[in-house]
Amino acid sequence: MKPDIGKVLVAGQWRESQSLSRFQAENPATGELLATQYPVSTGDEAMEALRAGAEAAEALRTADGETVAKFLESCAAGIEERATELVEMAHAETALPKTPRLREIELPRTTDQLRQAARAARDGSWQRPVWDEARKIYSLYAPLGGPVVVMGPNNFPFAFNSAAGGDFAAAIAAGNPVIAKANTGHPGTTRLLAEIAFDAARSRRLPASTIQLIYRTPREVGLEMVAHRLVGATAFTGSREAGLQLKAAADRAGKPIYLEMSSINPVIILEGALRERGEAIAEEFFASCTAGAGQFCTNPGLVILPGGELGERFIEACRRKFEAGTAGVLLGRGVRDGLSKSVALLRRHGAEVVCGGDALPGPATRFANTLLRASGEAFLRHPEELQTEAFGAVSLLVCCRGLDEMASIVKSIAGNLTGTIYSHTGGADDAAYAVIEPQLRARVGRLINDRMPTGVAVSPAMNHGGPFPATGHPGFTAVGLPAAIQRFVALHCYENVRPERLPPALQRSK
Amino acid sequence: MKPDIGKVLVAGQWRESQSLSRFQAENPATGELLATQYPVSTGDEAMEALRAGAEAAEALRTADGETVAKFLESCAAGIEERATELVEMAHAETALPKTPRLREIELPRTTDQLRQAARAARDGSWQRPVWDEARKIYSLYAPLGGPVVVMGPNNFPFAFNSAAGGDFAAAIAAGNPVIAKANTGHPGTTRLLAEIAFDAARSRRLPASTIQLIYRTPREVGLEMVAHRLVGATAFTGSREAGLQLKAAADRAGKPIYLEMSSINPVIILEGALRERGEAIAEEFFASCTAGAGQFCTNPGLVILPGGELGERFIEACRRKFEAGTAGVLLGRGVRDGLSKSVALLRRHGAEVVCGGDALPGPATRFANTLLRASGEAFLRHPEELQTEAFGAVSLLVCCRGLDEMASIVKSIAGNLTGTIYSHTGGADDAAYAVIEPQLRARVGRLINDRMPTGVAVSPAMNHGGPFPATGHPGFTAVGLPAAIQRFVALHCYENVRPERLPPALQRSK
Repeated sequence: MKPDIGKVLVAGQWRESQSLSRFQAENPATGELLATQYPVSTGDEAMEALRAGAEAAEALRTADGETVAKFLESCAAGIEERATELVEMAHAETALPKTPRLREIELPRTTDQLRQAARAARDGSWQRPVWDEARKIYSLYAPLGGPVVVMGPNNFPFAFNSAAGGDFAAAIAAGNPVIAKANTGHPGTTRLLAEIAFDAARSRRLPASTIQLIYRTPREVGLEMVAHRLVGATAFTGSREAGLQLKAAADRAGKPIYLEMSSINPVIILEGALRERGEAIAEEFFASCTAGAGQFCTNPGLVILPGGELGERFIEACRRKFEAGTAGVLLGRGVRDGLSKSVALLRRHGAEVVCGGDALPGPATRFANTLLRASGEAFLRHPEELQTEAFGAVSLLVCCRGLDEMASIVKSIAGNLTGTIYSHTGGADDAAYAVIEPQLRARVGRLINDRMPTGVAVSPAMNHGGPFPATGHPGFTAVGLPAAIQRFVALHCYENVRPERLPPALQRSK
Repeated sequence: MKPDIGKVLVAGQWRESQSLSRFQAENPATGELLATQYPVSTGDEAMEALRAGAEAAEALRTADGETVAKFLESCAAGIEERATELVEMAHAETALPKTPRLREIELPRTTDQLRQAARAARDGSWQRPVWDEARKIYSLYAPLGGPVVVMGPNNFPFAFNSAAGGDFAAAIAAGNPVIAKANTGHPGTTRLLAEIAFDAARSRRLPASTIQLIYRTPREVGLEMVAHRLVGATAFTGSREAGLQLKAAADRAGKPIYLEMSSINPVIILEGALRERGEAIAEEFFASCTAGAGQFCTNPGLVILPGGELGERFIEACRRKFEAGTAGVLLGRGVRDGLSKSVALLRRHGAEVVCGGDALPGPATRFANTLLRASGEAFLRHPEELQTEAFGAVSLLVCCRGLDEMASIVKSIAGNLTGTIYSHTGGADDAAYAVIEPQLRARVGRLINDRMPTGVAVSPAMNHGGPFPATGHPGFTAVGLPAAIQRFVALHCYENVRPERLPPALQRSK
């Protein structure tokens, strides 16, 4: 029997890849390879996609916001029509629960993002036109003039998918074509989503290469793509190691690249809060840390708390919950092996195991819910190593000997997506808060009070970003519209240009 | 006699540098060294400035917009008070004419920028607060949390000065302290401006390290500064070579850096315009290319025009003007030697001298007004080399054999600050414009019609930016408020944070 081989979508054609190198996705719940084979695209194929994307960028430049909005809405509608198929495929490839996670949570989130992006495309506010009539100088934000390469992560097969997720929606909203590079954990899901987007582009008469799809490339081809003269920008969500390699390549070529790389999302529990409601916080922490088997970019991987009896009681409460909780199936053996490595590294640098700490046997890829602990002093001996991300239901609890030590620890924290402070509801921690907050504020994108960081609302006020190394630049967000669009635009100024030659958004009267 | 030695301004103190290594500025009009010696700061001194700047950043975070605005206005008033002294010093260091250039043009431009920045600081619109009351998520743009290192260029001793110019004003407006690294061509001017800023900071009770000044560093110290964990961002205006080195260092560390590096500002003259008003365009071109001895980042260094008799007549008209014009005094011997090198490189790659081409003798540093020419075919053989910037009154005229060749040339153009198209006023060039404009648009920050590019109005609609290698990122501008502030901010999100703990800009009602 001839194997089922996934076709790439390049230059407006679904076609067999030129490449003979292939890979298969694995069902993480069973450890079995899924039947379909997907190609590892060659450099030639990637370059062809870039050329077609550059042509599409030129054509899209004159598409109006209404057409782009309708395209995004068609994508959302197409996803709803094929919801059952999408959920089955994503479940097989990622082992994420069909319900409620995929069907009731992530899929509606994805279509909501697409429709929010459609609204932004329609109202055009992201263009921020400025008129200086006296000097005949006008400016607005415009598409980049080249395709946006989107490399999505493993942990959100819909909401951050290269062919349907937040980066896709934001890039398209500004009128940029997208070259989707599937996450190799869910190529089939990405193929379905690219089919939906491609059909939507045709029905809306947008350029055929508004969406293209490849599944995987050799490392050097990926580096070549993000640095290519024809690329507009790249959006990458994934590991710090891969992100830094791509960043270096894009930076050398002066090409914009937006990265969401890693984050341990420090949670600081002040003494009054711990005394007031330690048990409740332990429950919130457990729920947040183990949700989705801990595979969220905003997972609380570092908890900083007062030591002594109060801290011990909290740790004990957490231990009981973590031990009693079932370890979820991970997204793949890569995640499991990464966890083993990270936990080993943390232990080598002074973290002690409270519970868990090891991969679990069986066909499903699992890792025990894990708590580690270290003293503040131990943390400050190896602050860099003890901030190693362990992507899963793993967290390091650091017990401090007073506020000064706590402040020193916070000062040693690298850039993160989020930072949380729990404080006494009656104000008993206000002085401590005033010491800790400025240090934490400077190191995170989103500062939270009294709530765990895992929820990332699709809100116009959201910042899913933060200082390096959480991302590549502290001024941009990957979630929240219209702000997320801001990553995929160039500033275009027109001086003394004849009125009829100005882009439509500058022609309307002020 | 003890030599006069310029003091550095570090951590709130004017003091003698620790360094024994020194340099002197030169009067470019006479070739004589100016008396004052300035230190080449050590790494220790630079690191001390970074530490003091980081402390100032923390303190400035709570300064209100009104205080920052008054500081910027005090800087402007201080410049006006010491105008005579400033003009004398800048003239001695740069040989730029005292009047009208320094006194009537650049100085008022500088104070205008400072006052525009003050208005932006006062109204706070750059913060763009967003409220999501339902979810208790709020966001705004905030200072970077570390000092901004400003490295200004040689060609605008006031308007782009590290201690008073556009980057300084934009960084301060957002509440960031500045570490000014003087341009080594005008250390004395920068010292006066830093004195004014330091006095203004004290009178407004801002942190003493709101402004710091060093004059020069060894190369490796500069690279260390822009990549240091305590730095907020860097703004650099200067040569591509130095800019790329700084960019690589900052990029590796994930630190924002904004660069304005080089631009040859292509001017495309379509056939109808040339036929209609060739002589007038030649006059505009001559005036634009030789203004300020050609030392503007927006100098028209590349002119693309139809060949044949029409083109020959234009070149001849230009030649007569360039030969008849007086060569201005350059900013220094570095500029003159750079011109000799660039012209030699252009000639090696097929450019032929129409007039000029050599440095001029005498004590003043001068270079003959220079026109080069090449055929379109010759240009396309070495498009990269023939886009080498020659920073001075030098321009390369490229004669095309038809519109196709012209379009190919435009497609080979790298990122530039500006691009200009001259077309027939009656519409005879409209078809050609439609072919050329999309290609040029994608490659420049500011697209101009029928006007030379050298004027850079301080307008909210201005874009003094453009794709790499003109700058490091196509989405930011160095001129024009409040947009220029956008470079020096981090996006700060607050979730579930108690109302009284929110920054003031988020506390006011929606």
